[in-house]
Amino acid sequence: MKLNYKIIFHFFGLLLLFNGGFMLLASLVSLIYKDGATIGIFEAAGLTILTGLLVMFYTKSHKKEMNKREGYIVVGLGWIIMSLSGTLPYVFSGAIPSFTNAFFETMSGYTTTGASILNDIEAMPEGILFWRSLTHWIGGMGIIVLAIAVLPLLGIGGMQMFAAEAPGPNADKLHPRITDTAKRLWLIYFGYTAAETILLKVAGMSFFDAINHALCTLSTGGFSTKNASVAYWNNQPIIQYIIIIFMFLAGTNFVLSYFAFKGKVQKVLHDGEFKLYFKFIAAFTIIAALIIYFQADVSKSSIIHPMVWGEAESAFRHALFQVLAIVTTTGFVTADYTLWSPFLVVFFFGLMFLGGSAGSTSGGVKVIRHLILIENGFLEFKRSLHPNAILPLRYNKRSISGDIVFNIQGFFILYMLSFIVGALVFSMLGIDFKSSVGLAASSLGNVGPALGDFGPVNNYAALPSLGKWWASFLMLIGRLELFTVLILLMPFFWRNR
Amino acid sequence: MKLNYKIIFHFFGLLLLFNGGFMLLASLVSLIYKDGATIGIFEAAGLTILTGLLVMFYTKSHKKEMNKREGYIVVGLGWIIMSLSGTLPYVFSGAIPSFTNAFFETMSGYTTTGASILNDIEAMPEGILFWRSLTHWIGGMGIIVLAIAVLPLLGIGGMQMFAAEAPGPNADKLHPRITDTAKRLWLIYFGYTAAETILLKVAGMSFFDAINHALCTLSTGGFSTKNASVAYWNNQPIIQYIIIIFMFLAGTNFVLSYFAFKGKVQKVLHDGEFKLYFKFIAAFTIIAALIIYFQADVSKSSIIHPMVWGEAESAFRHALFQVLAIVTTTGFVTADYTLWSPFLVVFFFGLMFLGGSAGSTSGGVKVIRHLILIENGFLEFKRSLHPNAILPLRYNKRSISGDIVFNIQGFFILYMLSFIVGALVFSMLGIDFKSSVGLAASSLGNVGPALGDFGPVNNYAALPSLGKWWASFLMLIGRLELFTVLILLMPFFWRNR
Ligand SMILES: [K+]
Ligand SMILES: [K+]
Repeated sequence: MKLNYKIIFHFFGLLLLFNGGFMLLASLVSLIYKDGATIGIFEAAGLTILTGLLVMFYTKSHKKEMNKREGYIVVGLGWIIMSLSGTLPYVFSGAIPSFTNAFFETMSGYTTTGASILNDIEAMPEGILFWRSLTHWIGGMGIIVLAIAVLPLLGIGGMQMFAAEAPGPNADKLHPRITDTAKRLWLIYFGYTAAETILLKVAGMSFFDAINHALCTLSTGGFSTKNASVAYWNNQPIIQYIIIIFMFLAGTNFVLSYFAFKGKVQKVLHDGEFKLYFKFIAAFTIIAALIIYFQADVSKSSIIHPMVWGEAESAFRHALFQVLAIVTTTGFVTADYTLWSPFLVVFFFGLMFLGGSAGSTSGGVKVIRHLILIENGFLEFKRSLHPNAILPLRYNKRSISGDIVFNIQGFFILYMLSFIVGALVFSMLGIDFKSSVGLAASSLGNVGPALGDFGPVNNYAALPSLGKWWASFLMLIGRLELFTVLILLMPFFWRNR
Repeated sequence: MKLNYKIIFHFFGLLLLFNGGFMLLASLVSLIYKDGATIGIFEAAGLTILTGLLVMFYTKSHKKEMNKREGYIVVGLGWIIMSLSGTLPYVFSGAIPSFTNAFFETMSGYTTTGASILNDIEAMPEGILFWRSLTHWIGGMGIIVLAIAVLPLLGIGGMQMFAAEAPGPNADKLHPRITDTAKRLWLIYFGYTAAETILLKVAGMSFFDAINHALCTLSTGGFSTKNASVAYWNNQPIIQYIIIIFMFLAGTNFVLSYFAFKGKVQKVLHDGEFKLYFKFIAAFTIIAALIIYFQADVSKSSIIHPMVWGEAESAFRHALFQVLAIVTTTGFVTADYTLWSPFLVVFFFGLMFLGGSAGSTSGGVKVIRHLILIENGFLEFKRSLHPNAILPLRYNKRSISGDIVFNIQGFFILYMLSFIVGALVFSMLGIDFKSSVGLAASSLGNVGPALGDFGPVNNYAALPSLGKWWASFLMLIGRLELFTVLILLMPFFWRNR
């Protein structure tokens, strides 16, 4: 079957139009702050909107038919088109003159990774910083559509199971219209962002910092308007606790928030993934807090730790903050956890593979996949002793088919393979073992900070150009659950039969 | 059903008897070399044989019935009993006074890991060195039985597929008698060991060094009689090429050697796993050789590289030797590959997860599992585009059931999980990131040399006591394909129903 190119390009046009609209918003912010970048951002917006309109006009006679192949192309190449057009505000305003750097920063934005090549963030024009935060937030919106409306239909990595949980009409084929479900969840996403902005402002942040950090929290992105990231507010614990709460929420399934707002709190408390997510965070925080309190020497860090509420609270807060920042893959930084202890380095490295919940904006493998793999692992042990017993895997009281477990196993293996190949390529560029391995895990999991030369107190500016492109690729495949992008690299995909 | 403890202990008695017999052989070697350890080793042999006989005598009235549970116990605890009794020659002769060290060295022997706590190997009595090499060789024999007669029946990690390839009668339940197949393969194992001994002697090694290195090659163990390992013969390329050939053979399925000796060479050349094993080694050797030749600075190493046949040959030989040493999990050392380039560190680290062929004495994940996972990965991409097409996975012209793929996926995931937990525990003992990660991968894969502080030019003497016990545990579970040991840790396993 021939590809329906017209509908694909129609979607691309729509994406550009949408992206240009957000750029207009950024140019407005730039105008308000008189930061000198207004014209550059406005030109970027104009060019993007115009291109989008032209493409939509020339493809308006498309057949309203889409199958899986068109779906994969729209998702995979769509993210790339967003990133290409998203570089324009940086390039036109002169804020990031190098195209490689601009592309990296934009891809890091849309994939909600939050790794940055900016050496002096605070010197950037406000409009540009706002645009940078917006790329996160737009990426987060995209992930919600993807999780609810696209991935389950494409049958990616066991996510069809999660889809059965989502409220609203269950579409049974790809539909060009975004489902009602996605709209409901966007509303929650928007509402949380607004709430965090207000709370951060009330707690003492400037309005500009507040809205930027809110945009970057709910998207689990992690860009900050400060060079020191959230460590800038180490003397204001309340600000950090607010971010902690919203990181926690951003890492949960937004469908659960929907249930909570509908008063169905029982559904939240009995959700298997939510329970495990909570337990993971609690357990890891306790471990990290004890080690920081009894063992780590925070004075070794370049980050200042005033301990305004005492040493115990500081240990607890930084443990909780950094555990959440890594588990939810937000990647904000309040402390350099790579200095805490050799154990915590391996520990946080391992956490990069965890990920938040399905149906959240977080990256990584996701808690639900770990849950299914762990439960299946135990069942396998039982099955090997009692080969004739029927031992079905159950999740939230429904039994999970073997096909879904198979899918999830395949996803995990592909993830580990991508990680190893990812690290190999970084090491080919002369990057040492620890940094290579950290970069691969962090890029693939859309975390942000890595290890070694690219740890929490460093940025990605020192990465060689090729390394920036490779990291961009890893961010993209990690964000789009691997299959969606990698299938585009298969020759059979492009064969018309 | 109650466990048939009597038959379990009967097996343990048999193992002790068998182990004691080998100790007698070592005491004979000790006597010949008049190394002063003869009485110690003889006492160890006597005690072990006596205990074995007593246990066998008191359990001689056992019911000749074994089910899977007894099978798991015999395998898992059997390896531990071998290791406990195997420490006696070290302890009684005073060669390794610390029990922790003696146990580590013995477990490293029987699991064919080859990691050593000996700082001065060359100062050891010959009888003790011979015993050390024998532990490898006995471990290799055990692995052959395990692969042919035990694992397939227990259905571990997809190995039932491999069993269908093995010659001889196909038992359909656990059988106390070692199958004819195992005997045939032992003969090949013995023949290869004899052949390598002769060739090494002819090439210029002392007879003692020759037989020890042959015992440690065919078992893919990697203990050496020299402090510098095989780098001791860096000025004698022929010796190293002989070891290369036998490492290659030791990493192949012994069943294929059987076919080759029967004249069925076509069966060898068309074997999917053998072809991939060969391609892996060829490709990795070319990559490593080019990097050593054009980029690496061998003079940085503490190992001397005389380059008797020129720089190109030296680069090729060390590349081939180290690739084989890691892929086959032998772990012999002719060069410090951790100094070659940052890329090759990550590269060799990745190779630790590869492993040789099923039905060989090598450790690691094994080529056949990678083959099935890779082929299934490609099929999954095709399946996601054509969900209704029937795309069966084929190996050696037979189609592979989904259950087997499921099993192999489960094995791989458990392997990665064990690796991550393994590294976490090492890092808890204060070991840095690179060393922790290297130790976990190397111990689990039964490779031997790791990275960082425990790299090819170091040994494991500096590991804290707890770390030695943990490494021993990882070696054991890695060697016994994880499930076999880990199932013994499950509470349900010990429940009588
Ligand atoms: K992030
Ligand atoms: K070894």
